[in-house]
Order: sequence, then C-alpha cells, then structure tokens
Amino acid sequence: MAGPSEKKEKVKKEKVLKEKVATSSGQKKKDVKKETGLGLSVKKDENFGDWYSEVCKQDMIEYYDISGCYILRPWSMAIWEIMQIFFDAEIKKMKVKNCYFPLFVSPAVLEKEKDHIEGFAPEVAWVTKSGKSDLEIPIAIRPTSETVMYPYYSKWIRGHRDLPLKLNQWCNVVRWEFSNPTPFIRSREFLWQEGHTAFATKAEADEEVLQILELYRRIYEEYLAVPVVKGMKSENEKFAGGLYTTSVEAFIPNTGRGVQGATSHCLGQNFAKMFEINYENEKAETAMVWQNSWAYSTRTIGVMIMTHGDDKGLVLPPKVASVQVVVIPVPYKDANTQGIYDACTATASALCEAGIRAEEDLRDNYSPGWKYSDWEMKGVPLRIEIGPRDLENDQVRTVRRDNGVKEDIPRGSLVENVKELLEKIQQNMYEVAKQKREACVQEVKTWDEFIKALNEKKLILAPWCDEEEVERDVKARTKGETGAAKTLCSPFDQPELPEGTLCFASGKPAKKWTYWGRSY
Amino acid sequence: MAGPSEKKEKVKKEKVLKEKVATSSGQKKKDVKKETGLGLSVKKDENFGDWYSEVCKQDMIEYYDISGCYILRPWSMAIWEIMQIFFDAEIKKMKVKNCYFPLFVSPAVLEKEKDHIEGFAPEVAWVTKSGKSDLEIPIAIRPTSETVMYPYYSKWIRGHRDLPLKLNQWCNVVRWEFSNPTPFIRSREFLWQEGHTAFATKAEADEEVLQILELYRRIYEEYLAVPVVKGMKSENEKFAGGLYTTSVEAFIPNTGRGVQGATSHCLGQNFAKMFEINYENEKAETAMVWQNSWAYSTRTIGVMIMTHGDDKGLVLPPKVASVQVVVIPVPYKDANTQGIYDACTATASALCEAGIRAEEDLRDNYSPGWKYSDWEMKGVPLRIEIGPRDLENDQVRTVRRDNGVKEDIPRGSLVENVKELLEKIQQNMYEVAKQKREACVQEVKTWDEFIKALNEKKLILAPWCDEEEVERDVKARTKGETGAAKTLCSPFDQPELPEGTLCFASGKPAKKWTYWGRSY
Repeated sequence: MAGPSEKKEKVKKEKVLKEKVATSSGQKKKDVKKETGLGLSVKKDENFGDWYSEVCKQDMIEYYDISGCYILRPWSMAIWEIMQIFFDAEIKKMKVKNCYFPLFVSPAVLEKEKDHIEGFAPEVAWVTKSGKSDLEIPIAIRPTSETVMYPYYSKWIRGHRDLPLKLNQWCNVVRWEFSNPTPFIRSREFLWQEGHTAFATKAEADEEVLQILELYRRIYEEYLAVPVVKGMKSENEKFAGGLYTTSVEAFIPNTGRGVQGATSHCLGQNFAKMFEINYENEKAETAMVWQNSWAYSTRTIGVMIMTHGDDKGLVLPPKVASVQVVVIPVPYKDANTQGIYDACTATASALCEAGIRAEEDLRDNYSPGWKYSDWEMKGVPLRIEIGPRDLENDQVRTVRRDNGVKEDIPRGSLVENVKELLEKIQQNMYEVAKQKREACVQEVKTWDEFIKALNEKKLILAPWCDEEEVERDVKARTKGETGAAKTLCSPFDQPELPEGTLCFASGKPAKKWTYWGRSY
Repeated sequence: MAGPSEKKEKVKKEKVLKEKVATSSGQKKKDVKKETGLGLSVKKDENFGDWYSEVCKQDMIEYYDISGCYILRPWSMAIWEIMQIFFDAEIKKMKVKNCYFPLFVSPAVLEKEKDHIEGFAPEVAWVTKSGKSDLEIPIAIRPTSETVMYPYYSKWIRGHRDLPLKLNQWCNVVRWEFSNPTPFIRSREFLWQEGHTAFATKAEADEEVLQILELYRRIYEEYLAVPVVKGMKSENEKFAGGLYTTSVEAFIPNTGRGVQGATSHCLGQNFAKMFEINYENEKAETAMVWQNSWAYSTRTIGVMIMTHGDDKGLVLPPKVASVQVVVIPVPYKDANTQGIYDACTATASALCEAGIRAEEDLRDNYSPGWKYSDWEMKGVPLRIEIGPRDLENDQVRTVRRDNGVKEDIPRGSLVENVKELLEKIQQNMYEVAKQKREACVQEVKTWDEFIKALNEKKLILAPWCDEEEVERDVKARTKGETGAAKTLCSPFDQPELPEGTLCFASGKPAKKWTYWGRSY
C-alpha cells in the first residue's frame, strides 16, 4: 500500500564507471578475491548501485529471467519469516485475524474508487487469456487489496456488533513498473502483509494507525537495526484514496535517499462511501465505518542490506539472521584435528540447545580463510574459530562481523557470553546506523541552504507551509538526473517551530518541520 | 502439482432437485431454523452438492465475484495455518529450506518440458497487458513451479557438494479451469506448499518421496481426522512429465467419489535433462540429478468438511479448530447471572492458560439456544454450558459436537477432563470416518461386479493388469452423467493376489490390486 505517487519520480541509475585503477585498498581487496575466489568486486562508497546488486546476489536474491522479478533465496526468506512470526503474533494480540482474498480483481470493482485507481492504473497487470481462449473480460492482478476486499466488508458488516472488523493477509502483489527495478526495494511482484480494518469511530481508527506504525518501527529498529522516523506523509504523498498516511522513513546515507519503510493509512470514510460499508449503530441509525489499511513488504530486507552491508558483503543483525553464529575449525599440521572438529560440533550443539541459531562449517575442501570470507559475505553476525591453542586453553575465539573485534571466551561460559555478544552486536549495529543517519540530518531555512544540502546528500529538515502546490513546485525545481526532491514525512517528534518561521520554499508562514530529500 | 490428467474427467454437477416436501426431521430442522435464524436448508444425504456449498459459506468461504475464486475467511485460514505450522516444522527437520520464486513464467521456459506443458497448457492464465500497454511477450501465471525453478537449479547445482538441494515455497498458484469449480476442492487460484528437491541418487529421491507422503498421511489422519490410502498413481494419472506419482487418496461416501489428497512425485531425470541440471560427481564425471516435487493444498480443508460435516453444519477436528471449546452462559431468571458470566470467563481463561483454544460467548443479544446452534454450525468440537445448577455443584456441562454426548465435569479437574475429551473427539472422528469409508470398500473380480459397485457409489478394489490402454478403455466405457471411473491408486498395502487372478476389465493376468472409482 505504499502510495504510487512517490514512484513518479523515477530514480535514475547512477552510472558511475567502475574504478579501473586499483587503489591500494582496492588492490588488497582484489588479492583477497583472487586467493579465496570470494569477495565483492565493487565498493559500497564507490558505486553503491552495483555494490547493492552484487551483495544481494550473493545469497539473498537470484535475478529472474523476467525483468523486475526476483527469486528470494532461503537466506533472505528466513529473514522474512522471522519478521513475520513477530508481526503476526503482535497483530493477533490486537485481535486481527488472517484470511486470504483472491489474487484477481474484476475491472468494475478495481475502478470503483476514482483517486485510488488513478494512483494504481498504470502499473496494473491484466490477465486476458486462459489457455488459448480470450477471457470475456480482462481481469486485473491485485496491486493492493482495498477494492478486492471492501465489497465483502459491505456484506459482512451489518450491525455495530460486527465492528471492529480486523483482517490481515500475507500475500504477493503485482505492480508492473517499467523503470529501474531494484531487488527488494522496487520489484514487479513482492511479498507483504496487508491489514484492512473497519471501526465504528474515527478515534478507534486513529488509535490503530499508530499502534501498527509502532510495530513497523519495532521491525525496523529492534529487528533490522535500522533507525526510522515516524511521521505523517504530505497530501501529495499519501495513499491514493485515503484520508491520511503515516509511515516509518529510513535513510540511506550513501545515496542520500530516503526510503519509505512501511505505511499505516487511515482511509477515513472514502472507501466506505464507494463500497457502501454501512451498519446500524446502537441508536438503530445507519452509519458509515472508518477504515484503515497498513502494510510492510520485503522492501524491509533491502533497506537492511543497504544500511548495514559493507565491502565484505552482507552484515545481518542477529535478531533476523537465520545463522547467528558459525563455528569454524582451524586445524594445523600435527594438531589434534579430530579434537578440533569435535569441539566445533559440540560448540554449535550447545549454542543450538540454548536457542541460538548456530552452525558448524566442517567442509574439508576449503581453508579456514576461505570460510571466513564466505561467512563474512553472508553476513553471519558472529564467527567462532577453534584451533589447537583454543582447545588447549578450553576457550573459543569469537570474531564479530559488525566491527571485526576478536575476543577469546572460556568454553565454560560459552552460552551466556555468546548471548551477550549477539545482543551487543544488535545494539551496536543500530547505534552505528543511527549515528550515520544523524550525521546526515541538515536543518535548512532557505532555498539556497536546501539546494546545497540536497547536493550534499543530506536528509533535510525544513520548515514548510504544508501546501500541496509548494511541494509540486519544489519537485519541479529539483528535477534532475538523480530525481526530484520531495517530502519524506513530517515527523511526529517536531522540533520547536519559533513564531514567525517561514517556509524554506514559499516564504509563507511555516506550519511544521518536514523531512525532504530524494527517495527510492 | 496435482497432475492435470485426472481433471480431464470433469465431474458433472449433480442436479438433484431440492426436496420440496419436508420430511418429519426436515420439518423439525426448519422449525429450528425459524426459531434461531440459523441452520442449513439442505441435508447432507439429500443434496450433497448444495449442502457442501451451504456449509462452506457459513464461515469458511465467501464466494467471490470472479467465478472459481473464493475468499478464505479467518475460520478456514486458521486451519490452514495450523497445518502449515506442523508441516513446515517437519520439513525443516528434513533440512528443506523455504524460498520464494516469482508468480510469472516466460513462455519459453514454461514450454520446455513437453509432457508437462501438454498437461497444464489449457489451464494457464496469461498476462498480456500492463496499464494500457501490451506486453512484448505474454507472461504465464504459474500453475506449478517446476519450470519456474529448475533453470536456477541448473545454475546453482555445480558439484556433488551442492546436493541435495531441498527447497519449498508456500504460495498461490492459478489453474484456470472452466467447469464446475468447488470451494477448496477445485478453484482457479489456490494456496499450497510446493517442495522441489534434487539428489545425486535415485535411492535418496525414492526415500524422500515416501517420507513426504507420510507427512501428508499425518496431516489427513492425525490433523484432519480423515482416513487416507497411500499408494501409487497409474501411468495415466501420474504427474505430467514425472517418473512416478504417489498420493494419499480420500473417499467421500456420500458421493462415492475418491479425492486425491496430496501428491509426492519422483520426477526422475526428465526435468533434469530438459533443464540441464548436471553436476560433477566425486569421480569428476558429469552426472544428472534425480528430482522430486510434492505438494498439498487448501483442498485438504474441503476434504475435511465433506468428511465430517453434518446437517447442523461444520464439524471440526480439535487439532485444527481455531476455537476448540466455546463456553456459553445459561442464565435463568432470578439466578446469579453475574456469577455465571464470571464462571464462563474464568473457565475459558483456565483452558487458554493450559494451551487449549477456548473462548467464552457472552453476547447478551442472543439466547443460549441460538448460541448453541451458531457454534454447532461453526463446528466447534466442544461446548461448555454453565448455568445456575452447574454453579451450585461447582461443575460444568460439556457437549460434544461429534456425537452430541453430554457430560458434567467438576471444575476442579476441568483442564485434564477437557484435554481428554478433545483427544477422544479427535480419535472418534477419525474412527467414525474410517468405518464409513471401509463400509464403502468393495472388492470386485468381474466387469459386472465393477459396474454394480460403481452404481452403488463404492470404493472399488479390483485386480488390474496395469495397462494404460485398459484404464483408458474403462474410462470410455463408464463415461456418463456423473463422470467416468478411473484408477485412484494402487495401495502400497496390497491384499494377497492369488496366482492366476485376472484383470476385472481386460481378462489379462492381474498384476496388482488397484482402487477405482469416480473422483473429484
């Protein structure tokens, strides 16, 4: 349910040429690659687009033979499932129930809400044939399910006792975009959950919008270790056909682009009106419901990769990593090889029993160094090495993926030390990401400051008059190779806005602080 | 991955007219309906098709405005999720990993395996447009994912260390059939899991086929309380493009139809050949993989409804019921109403704490009688009633959905008694269903016996020569209004076949016992 409007500004692919001359660290990198057959050929700071594509391809994604479609490999699917378990349990506590509505929508229903269909029409995929026969009427594939579901909400909701109605589904949706597909971030088919709820009062709907937004914040900050800003989308950027849209917004310092993380919409009574979702209230009068819809998608995974990945590959936060700890034997000539292998197996087992997702890597056709690189590329948060000296000292060597710090820990306190380390890694990844993002935030008061900050890839916080016309004007004036600037959100957490502050763009009295930037 | 061949015999909708004259029990039924506004208008024995449709519509399914598509409401989705948790954990123990491949297939890939595409081509839905533009090439929606996945298996599998490769996905698939859609049993879009595995040896593939089939048996027998037969499909009925197909087969006594419950296919090396899935074996030679694919779908839920449902509505086995126990207050005039309500809440809470899925129904706008009918229709396995007498005696009244048996149990031993009752209900539902099915099994030796048994809606076990030609002949000779007879499966558990036994149809020497019948 990410509004399609923000997509109108297509991100132009940065075509920075791959660096041909090896810098000194580049040379080192290539040597590693040569030695191990592993490693990335592009650096995150040098060519972010290619770096991202390469790092995704390692284990997360396989490019598919239909453009804009991607295969989610087990390494990324496991992350999706971990988030799903969390979110599904949380919404069930809120009495949301899962259901499944069809993939297909008939055109008459799809086109019922005018603003809504205007937003989605250009990207709708149409089925027109089955076997060799033409269908009587073409059938659309859901880009989102408001119009699929709401005719039945109208049927199911009769009296006030039928409210609230709270449904969710985990499914695929299709938005046939033509330019610049990016794995996870912008693909023609993606997985998501979409919640659709109906209430008797606006107050209940408003409250739920924020409850769900808080869950989205927790997915990003607690699970993916990605800092986000909670806020309100502008009128231009809100969900097509809705009343207002709240979102969590992330920011990618390398490209200076905002990215809409997930959205929780209050639809107001607009869809209720179109789909006649009425009920008899306690006074036996006919009333209209208030509706919300909310969604997060596999885009979350892309934001995580962009935020934490480095020149060695993926860096996974422990809470979502399907392998949190990998145990690697480091045998030496004349050492007790079997003893080392057994210690690795025992270590991984002890961790698994304690609920830590651990695995030993006993492959005998790769050197320890090759394995280090391999698991670093996969982003496993913690590596444990066991060699002859560790065996002697009844210890293991730990190496953190996030900062490379090495530490020997006694086998006697293995489980508690590893648990602690994983928590530290999770926390540190969040802190580092937050610091990096905060270093990008730039307050501006004037148009000149705004343009300067935009060129410096800043996350711009500016006082704004909150007029649609002005946002459109800013977009038009910043339209360029790398895409136009627009509002990301007006943060709920507003800095003080001194009396008399003017809008950076229009010079009219400012109404609020708003984040601006280019975006995905 | 249910082979499409069995669908060629379309089930003709039975058009028995609704009974117009009320029988004595019918009259009673209608009185109940009048009183409560609930109840079914059709009896299972009198018009099975309408009964099934009506019982599905109560809480499981909503009919959708596109024919052959259905909405899975929370009441059925919860059952799907419970089975999914079981099966997903089991296959993860077998080191199968979840992934997600795209919904779309390009025609070149889809058509690569000739037998396979012949089987599926007539039911493939094609996307030809996005927005207002025609696509350059039409794109198919997956009817199953062999051709979607295997080009990438070819890429990922290089050496013997890459084997076995075991992937699974939970997803929707589309088969655009034109006749006789039936909720759960035959729909144009459905949910399933599809496992796709590749091994170095046939022995490993063979072993996995049966391990998965055993999981499917457990889903039916242990979860859905539906007895099934494990067996081998005939050459005519096997998966298009595969080597052999095993299945679990259920039987619906009311219609005398078999229903393929789930299939576990050994694909042999046929797809491997087409998609060039080769690897270097330990002797550094190029070898070809052995593949399996296996799937079960939301059809399981339909089989369960058909098996257990009765004239009062659904009957859910406790293991898959999202509400296992409903607690209903039975207040009387001058009784301690608040005390009764509190006891209901306390009872439901105590059960929930013990891991039983229980709910109290404290709605004040319905009579206890209305609530009884309502929850009976929903199929909740156990009802607990609490009235003034129960409060006095510190007991609750239990009423079983499966057989109506009432029992008072002391509140002191509530949890253990309810647990025991739920287990008994689960067991009893399975036993009753098994007895009903076994009463339908008819061994036949001759064509005349076969035809007689077929007309009597029997599940026919017959000695067969195992020749494709003969099965086609039987189909042709039994083609009629209610569909042709065909093989269901040859059970792994074979009765003795005395030397000299002849095929019931061809008169040639019989090779095996095979189940025959009409089917869904």
